Amino acid sequence: MAASVLIVGGTHGNECNGPWLLQHWGHKPPQLQRRALSVRTEIGNPAALEAGRRYIDKDLNRSFIDELLQDPDTPCLEGQRAQQLLASHGPNGQMPTQVLIDLHSTTAAMGNCLVLYGRRPADLALAAGCQEELGLPVYLHESDPRQTGFMAQAWPCGLALEVGPVAQGVLSPAICRQSELGLEVLLDVLEKAAAGQLNLRRHLQIHRHLGSIDLPRDNHGQPCACLHPQRLCGDWQELQAGDPLFQHADGTTITFAGDPEGPVHTVFSNEAAYQEKGIATSLTRKEDLPAERSWVDALQAVLQN
Amino acid sequence: MAASVLIVGGTHGNECNGPWLLQHWGHKPPQLQRRALSVRTEIGNPAALEAGRRYIDKDLNRSFIDELLQDPDTPCLEGQRAQQLLASHGPNGQMPTQVLIDLHSTTAAMGNCLVLYGRRPADLALAAGCQEELGLPVYLHESDPRQTGFMAQAWPCGLALEVGPVAQGVLSPAICRQSELGLEVLLDVLEKAAAGQLNLRRHLQIHRHLGSIDLPRDNHGQPCACLHPQRLCGDWQELQAGDPLFQHADGTTITFAGDPEGPVHTVFSNEAAYQEKGIATSLTRKEDLPAERSWVDALQAVLQN
Repeated sequence: MAASVLIVGGTHGNECNGPWLLQHWGHKPPQLQRRALSVRTEIGNPAALEAGRRYIDKDLNRSFIDELLQDPDTPCLEGQRAQQLLASHGPNGQMPTQVLIDLHSTTAAMGNCLVLYGRRPADLALAAGCQEELGLPVYLHESDPRQTGFMAQAWPCGLALEVGPVAQGVLSPAICRQSELGLEVLLDVLEKAAAGQLNLRRHLQIHRHLGSIDLPRDNHGQPCACLHPQRLCGDWQELQAGDPLFQHADGTTITFAGDPEGPVHTVFSNEAAYQEKGIATSLTRKEDLPAERSWVDALQAVLQN
Repeated sequence: MAASVLIVGGTHGNECNGPWLLQHWGHKPPQLQRRALSVRTEIGNPAALEAGRRYIDKDLNRSFIDELLQDPDTPCLEGQRAQQLLASHGPNGQMPTQVLIDLHSTTAAMGNCLVLYGRRPADLALAAGCQEELGLPVYLHESDPRQTGFMAQAWPCGLALEVGPVAQGVLSPAICRQSELGLEVLLDVLEKAAAGQLNLRRHLQIHRHLGSIDLPRDNHGQPCACLHPQRLCGDWQELQAGDPLFQHADGTTITFAGDPEGPVHTVFSNEAAYQEKGIATSLTRKEDLPAERSWVDALQAVLQN
């Protein structure tokens, strides 16, 4: 039996490029055909996509938590949707899939990148194989108690493909094309792994999540400065002590104090959806993880289930 | 008595740069002080700004219509807000103002521009004076039966300052700075007019609204193509017959058929908020209106009321 992969677009209803691609490729598009894979697609949050909003009751990509998944009577629309997705396509669902690829876009200048939610060996193999092909950066979003319940964590292997910058609610051919490229390479890597032909030749370079920084706020909780223009030119840049970080309305600057433990790099600077989460930018540390044969073994084991 | 000007930011709750400027300049900011003017500021739609949404029940900038303004029991939140704004600051309100400047932002690559909603001589004088200083384009959004009830129309003189591109919900110092520049020059022109010192030396170049184009849609009403990348590099460009207009998911292109009546120029290409209005881009024709002394006379008369 072919290994099964689920591609989800529209997990956030105002990120419209991923779901638009899936809808317009139609049934059995050649882009998604791989000999050793059975690929299915799904709209993550159809109600939010219809409304043009990130979510209706709660962020679907924070809703894969026991509290919501184990409550058959939850009034939360996204809790219900998380249960439905797992019941249909989850590893123990009616039409089980083993791998989840979750298509996202961001208002931050992130380019094409992958987001991992921990160090599961199968995820590391998939990310490393993709990075060897495309060279794209990998954000390892681990150990963040403020942010849990990501969709990809509910599958044995899974990650998010994140593309930006693009405004919420805007269709952009360039963003669609970037998503398509990333998606095709992810499927190529899975195909190779399923055929026992994936060999990792290099280390995996990750940007490990250290923490997030909010805008400075006044006594009423309103932002009293915004990110400095230099922070908006592109993420993944090193932020050194003394670099401009925020800018007040009068043009004065707040600089970064530095991190005694080493160089830091920004990600998700000015992601519109993170303002409500109190996140202006997140800081990461660049690290190289030597590729291990056990990663590929783990991915092959997932695909053979 | 000094002529009174009302500056509104946050008419759309997800356009956060204008209201942020107004909130953080605080009371009596030097940027807004002019000897011959009394300048007040107001948040257009505080409930929508709090929610981070364009509006709650209905677009506030389409709510200045008799049907809503004359219904004291309207359940529409924006209808109520339109009534409040006029009762407080309208030309016949408790603290009357004669001129309205409405701060907006757009996801379209429009740069800094002014939007006029008709050919009232006082509006033309204000726009022409500002164009002479800054050279910015002026979009004359007239004769569009699908779009009525703009806020500026409810004041004797008024227009919108539109700045982009910026994603909805994102604070950007560059966008704030552009808004500030446009606003300062608008106040300078009003100050000159109030002092009887405004002299228009040139014609006013306008981009007259011709109509809007929706994305091609399938039988289910879903877009089956998006705007071509060349249409997203910047508005105000001439669109010639044969130029690429839309792009399908498979990369094929739909070209523009041309307009037999003359050259057309695009505005508001890929404004996220216009997807629900079925507008992918709007077409305009560039025209020069010879400046008339009567425009300045009309603006002076408004300011002396």
